[in-house]
Amino acid sequence: MNIGIFDSGIGGLTVFKEIDKSFPKANLYYIGDTARVPYGNKSEETIIRYSLELSEFLVKNFKVDVIVVACNTASSYAVDKIKNYLKIPVIDVITPGVLTAVTTTKNGKIGVIGTQATIRSKSYEKKLKELNPDFEVYSNACPLFVPLVEEGKIKGKITRLIIEDYLKNLVEKDIDTLILGCTHYPLLKEEISSLYPDINIVDSSALISDFIKKLNIFNEKNGERRVFITDSSPSFETLKNLLIPHLKFEKIDLNQICTL
Amino acid sequence: MNIGIFDSGIGGLTVFKEIDKSFPKANLYYIGDTARVPYGNKSEETIIRYSLELSEFLVKNFKVDVIVVACNTASSYAVDKIKNYLKIPVIDVITPGVLTAVTTTKNGKIGVIGTQATIRSKSYEKKLKELNPDFEVYSNACPLFVPLVEEGKIKGKITRLIIEDYLKNLVEKDIDTLILGCTHYPLLKEEISSLYPDINIVDSSALISDFIKKLNIFNEKNGERRVFITDSSPSFETLKNLLIPHLKFEKIDLNQICTL
Repeated sequence: MNIGIFDSGIGGLTVFKEIDKSFPKANLYYIGDTARVPYGNKSEETIIRYSLELSEFLVKNFKVDVIVVACNTASSYAVDKIKNYLKIPVIDVITPGVLTAVTTTKNGKIGVIGTQATIRSKSYEKKLKELNPDFEVYSNACPLFVPLVEEGKIKGKITRLIIEDYLKNLVEKDIDTLILGCTHYPLLKEEISSLYPDINIVDSSALISDFIKKLNIFNEKNGERRVFITDSSPSFETLKNLLIPHLKFEKIDLNQICTL
Repeated sequence: MNIGIFDSGIGGLTVFKEIDKSFPKANLYYIGDTARVPYGNKSEETIIRYSLELSEFLVKNFKVDVIVVACNTASSYAVDKIKNYLKIPVIDVITPGVLTAVTTTKNGKIGVIGTQATIRSKSYEKKLKELNPDFEVYSNACPLFVPLVEEGKIKGKITRLIIEDYLKNLVEKDIDTLILGCTHYPLLKEEISSLYPDINIVDSSALISDFIKKLNIFNEKNGERRVFITDSSPSFETLKNLLIPHLKFEKIDLNQICTL
């Protein structure tokens, strides 16, 4: 079983880590498009194109059986396009978060935070309302969260003030559940929880392995793990070392994937 | 006279605006690589490659006589490469800032702030020390400034706290001059000045026109202005409307420039 995982950058390594734990025998191939990161401020057309390029790279080079889109922005726009284009199962990070939020909320008031593109897509809102049209969904884009996390500022006064600034409108609406709609945001979970202890925080990446299990693809032998990036820069090493210190980045040239 | 201007995104429109004012008769062609923005967290190799691609696009399509690198990160790594590759004059945004700082400082203690890649390159430090080895140069990367500006958070408590967080080490060194080594940072000038009224703030983009004049290329007739981007997204419109509301973005496909 070969699992392909992609993200705009290295935030998706939080998802990689979960799958790594759950499927020790599967082969895992991750690609982070660090040469073009971030996707969250880009257009729908560009997000779809980059996502198809990364998926094709994984299928062509590693014959992956399933693709995990470990990026909420790409999950918001590109999942159906990848399925149609490559004819293999594609797992997004939005559905697990939605299903958990649905079982978590008591008052039906759910908050969603993510990148500008994710929030603009209304992907979470649509899926939540499909399950229950009575849900009240309040969302907000938090463009400073990704740079905060990438700088390692996951705690402290500035971080707390920015969290309050982004969440105050949602908190005023009396949400009891908050979906972290970006793979970087789990690193801010501790500060968010300490500010708003009564709100249930839902993190998509923690549940993604359950969705892969449902595909019922079995493993045969001990798997390899390879992690590719399209650009290497010292700033990408910090988060990697925090999450998967035992693995090395392999740099590949953008020309090898820049095909569409 | 055709002037080509490029930037990783739309921050370089601050430079475009200056040249627009000073050279009404020149033709101006700007390209912002919004599909791959930002450059400040990318590697030297990738920054050089993208810069050559954008320069080639300007030369091939608009036969520009001079290229202005309206991006400190690209100016830090790619200027000599572009000159060698295209054999035309190339103006960077670093030299004007350096020459102004040299005439401004009284105590010889100069601060430099910029993206991670700009600060890592030590481009400002090297040029300042070439002019006077006795200068004390203190620098700091400020990765949150670009997203702050792009979100329009150019004033307020959070912005002031982040400014203080990044500048406290430089201020402790008793700098009397601070170079804003990124085209986004002039938009934070007001808050920086109000926090540190005794420090002279040097903004490269304001002086770039003087450097073009020195090239002694004359104009003949009223010039056209065209502004290209490699990706269009609502988030790019805010800054554009602030700077050049009368001009429209023209979207071009990355394939048209993705040649190297």
